[in-house]
Amino acid sequence: MKRSTIAVRVNLLSSNHEELMELAIRRGFIWPSFEMYGGVRGFYDFGPLGTPLKNKIIQKWREFFVLGEGSLEIDSPTIMPEEVFKASGHLEHFVDLMTECEKCGQAFKVTELVKEKTGMDVEGSPKLELEKIIRQHEIACPECGGKLGSVFEFNTMFRTVIGPGGKRVGYLRPETAQGIFVDFKRLWRQAREMLPFGVAQIGRGYRNEISPRQGMIRLREFTMAELEVFFDPEGPSHPRFSVLGEDTLKLWRAGREKIVDMEVREAVEKGVVCNELMGYYMGLTKRFLIELGIPEENIRFREQTERQRAHYSKETWDAEVRTERFGWIEVAGIAYRTDYDLSRHSKFSKEDLTVFLQSENRRITCHVLEPSFGIDRIFYCVLEHSYKHDGKRKYLSLKRELAPIDVCVFPLMNRDGLPEKAITVHELLRKRKFSVVYDASGSIGRRYARADEIGIPYCITIDHQTLEDHSVTIRDRDTTKQVRSSIEDLPSTLRSLLNGELEFESAGTPLTK
Amino acid sequence: MKRSTIAVRVNLLSSNHEELMELAIRRGFIWPSFEMYGGVRGFYDFGPLGTPLKNKIIQKWREFFVLGEGSLEIDSPTIMPEEVFKASGHLEHFVDLMTECEKCGQAFKVTELVKEKTGMDVEGSPKLELEKIIRQHEIACPECGGKLGSVFEFNTMFRTVIGPGGKRVGYLRPETAQGIFVDFKRLWRQAREMLPFGVAQIGRGYRNEISPRQGMIRLREFTMAELEVFFDPEGPSHPRFSVLGEDTLKLWRAGREKIVDMEVREAVEKGVVCNELMGYYMGLTKRFLIELGIPEENIRFREQTERQRAHYSKETWDAEVRTERFGWIEVAGIAYRTDYDLSRHSKFSKEDLTVFLQSENRRITCHVLEPSFGIDRIFYCVLEHSYKHDGKRKYLSLKRELAPIDVCVFPLMNRDGLPEKAITVHELLRKRKFSVVYDASGSIGRRYARADEIGIPYCITIDHQTLEDHSVTIRDRDTTKQVRSSIEDLPSTLRSLLNGELEFESAGTPLTK
Repeated sequence: MKRSTIAVRVNLLSSNHEELMELAIRRGFIWPSFEMYGGVRGFYDFGPLGTPLKNKIIQKWREFFVLGEGSLEIDSPTIMPEEVFKASGHLEHFVDLMTECEKCGQAFKVTELVKEKTGMDVEGSPKLELEKIIRQHEIACPECGGKLGSVFEFNTMFRTVIGPGGKRVGYLRPETAQGIFVDFKRLWRQAREMLPFGVAQIGRGYRNEISPRQGMIRLREFTMAELEVFFDPEGPSHPRFSVLGEDTLKLWRAGREKIVDMEVREAVEKGVVCNELMGYYMGLTKRFLIELGIPEENIRFREQTERQRAHYSKETWDAEVRTERFGWIEVAGIAYRTDYDLSRHSKFSKEDLTVFLQSENRRITCHVLEPSFGIDRIFYCVLEHSYKHDGKRKYLSLKRELAPIDVCVFPLMNRDGLPEKAITVHELLRKRKFSVVYDASGSIGRRYARADEIGIPYCITIDHQTLEDHSVTIRDRDTTKQVRSSIEDLPSTLRSLLNGELEFESAGTPLTK
Repeated sequence: MKRSTIAVRVNLLSSNHEELMELAIRRGFIWPSFEMYGGVRGFYDFGPLGTPLKNKIIQKWREFFVLGEGSLEIDSPTIMPEEVFKASGHLEHFVDLMTECEKCGQAFKVTELVKEKTGMDVEGSPKLELEKIIRQHEIACPECGGKLGSVFEFNTMFRTVIGPGGKRVGYLRPETAQGIFVDFKRLWRQAREMLPFGVAQIGRGYRNEISPRQGMIRLREFTMAELEVFFDPEGPSHPRFSVLGEDTLKLWRAGREKIVDMEVREAVEKGVVCNELMGYYMGLTKRFLIELGIPEENIRFREQTERQRAHYSKETWDAEVRTERFGWIEVAGIAYRTDYDLSRHSKFSKEDLTVFLQSENRRITCHVLEPSFGIDRIFYCVLEHSYKHDGKRKYLSLKRELAPIDVCVFPLMNRDGLPEKAITVHELLRKRKFSVVYDASGSIGRRYARADEIGIPYCITIDHQTLEDHSVTIRDRDTTKQVRSSIEDLPSTLRSLLNGELEFESAGTPLTK
């Protein structure tokens, strides 16, 4: 592409993003937190539409990684005492390198600043090297042009104190995983002392970013969904591997220039990925993202280089999703944590965390394979990929199961008893636990447009015929086609439509416009 | 009762509690957090059975207070900047009075210490009065007998710092409500500018207790479910009041000796409760608790005295549930917060938070009625009230919808192809999204006992007849009755049983033992 073409394209994309964010904020999916007090970077609220969408994404994750896998799920505190993070290595390693402007005092994360100014990826480089790069490229404070000071480490865990007296230091967890590792002995018994077994946790994680500037892509407080799979390093296999062995993954290996398409089974057999469990969970991650509505061609796996990897990992594959606004972004990381965590906790707590394998008469420290998901980023990707706009309509083509509102009820006109009838239909659906709204304001066209914009899969209209024969029209969001159905059948018809058990054409008598 | 009888009864109760807690910990409902590092008071983990039970209680709350009420639900950060809590009054008022032992340095919450030593309820008493009581009653350090120092205030919010530099102070929210109040302007638009409207939030709350010693009844990190109902103080009515106006509540008014039974409607009309919304949400709270399996006679409402009330409240009714272990405990508070919060945030942020009521041509500051629930305490009450033990059996009689595991599959014997057949049934149910476990170890009696102990509503047994005619037995937890059903019908039969749409006797051919 020529340079001018690129510029036009970027403008177009950026305006799409702005349109979507305007919609997301105006209609109540998300908005920046604490606006009333000037806002604080890195914090977002999920509004009345964003909250159910996020919860439905979480529920889908639970279906895939907990119920589907037969995993255990636990829920442990977000505050953890300092001992845990001494053992886990986070006190030492969970740091970002920062620099402050000597003139205005503004703080910057060095790797981001260097990337912004030079395009270089310097993740994992030592302090002195970064100071040299800043000098060589004459990088100054982007805020005021002042001179940048020396590079130093900043631990990005939020610190607090438990109880009075200041003696017991605690941190907000940077990952839910540690809550699982410190419970290992209890969990081993819960899993009936058999390997492999998985333990999941879904909840808040925290990272005290130095100066986040990418909206909801880099949050200081976020929702994670993590699965820790404990296994025998001599048998890293998955009982249902064959289910997805033939799935194809886009793989970008560390240090390679080219991305290749490869079946999961081949990637395992050729040693491209470290073991069968890694391959299996990469495959399952792709299936999960597709289930959420992310198109297959926008999903790839990128191997982290040694410098990029977290201190606990021997091999990590990031699942990346292509977005218009931010390019390819990491939405999940699948890390082979080896026996690092259990060994460290055993050493620091002086507890024996080895297990005895009855069938093999061996005592081992379990190894861990961890698929870890950033729910907020996935939320953003789902929103962006569902946003459709042609000349005539703008709508969110959210998967029906994910839509924050199931159904909208309209009276065709605000007279002749139609609103009263519509209200009884609304109440009927509310009592049957549908997420349903009532809308009687503006033209029917405007009401359809409002419903489309937030991805409501079905709109029910009450018209004069309803008063005669108790039938209503159901309109399908994606096709705008309509069928006529009886009020009596409505709850079960809608339930079947939302579950994907019924084709829209079979939901009633088709209407021709 | 004579004294000796009381003593015996207390021992019996306490041993019930110990039995239940032993079960809860051993089977993975809950356990104290960070045991590996000696534990930290006031923190509990929800294990593999506790997590789904807690989630199902939350989902039930959502059905009652969000979907059923047509409320908006939001999800905002747990970390909030200091400005919010200056405005909300928490920096000033969210304090406990504490004293430290001058000898061993141990810290104590004064009101708890005084209650423990003298039985007096001194909640809300000023510092000097408490110091006087400590002197008069010669209260010493319960740990070492040392002299207690002066009484001082301790703010029980967890403090942290956002970003580098230490300049931006933040606190972990003591209630989810503030996240709603600071979003008021956006939420008013989301509610289409009509009163009353409710906004809910479910999530973590934090209270840095001085020295919590009541297990999961007094946590430093807990899960709350709160609803803020914004209304016009000149019209504090609820559109569906008539639905529960005739429900009876046990009311214990502040300063009264006697508890009275009174219908909601009467309580509103006589001014026993401040308005119709208060009455409505007390009624709904009772219905919610009954739906969770708490027997009606163990639910009462206790009005807080002026001293007990939080700084923002003009009238608060606590919903209390009777437990064997802790007596009557508060599980929810329904507070009339007036316009306190919106007025304060308006003053501190300099934002106009009044609204204009089109239909009445008036500009007002909305008032707030807040039902606020402690999910962890409700979890404990549900567990305790479901625990049944007669001479023969111990089981959790959890409501079917709340049971952490839906169904258990057994092969009658570990041979003749029965395990293989049982595994296919297990897989079939797993794929259909049931929470299902497989158990093949020990006698069938032991397996039933293990399933009963954790409240699994239905057990499926695969026997020799299964191999002939593809039928299985289904056993009902509460009655131990059994029916025979076909594998083909099993998923829909189980779904209907779990939803309460099918009587057990109609689920198949009854078996006589």
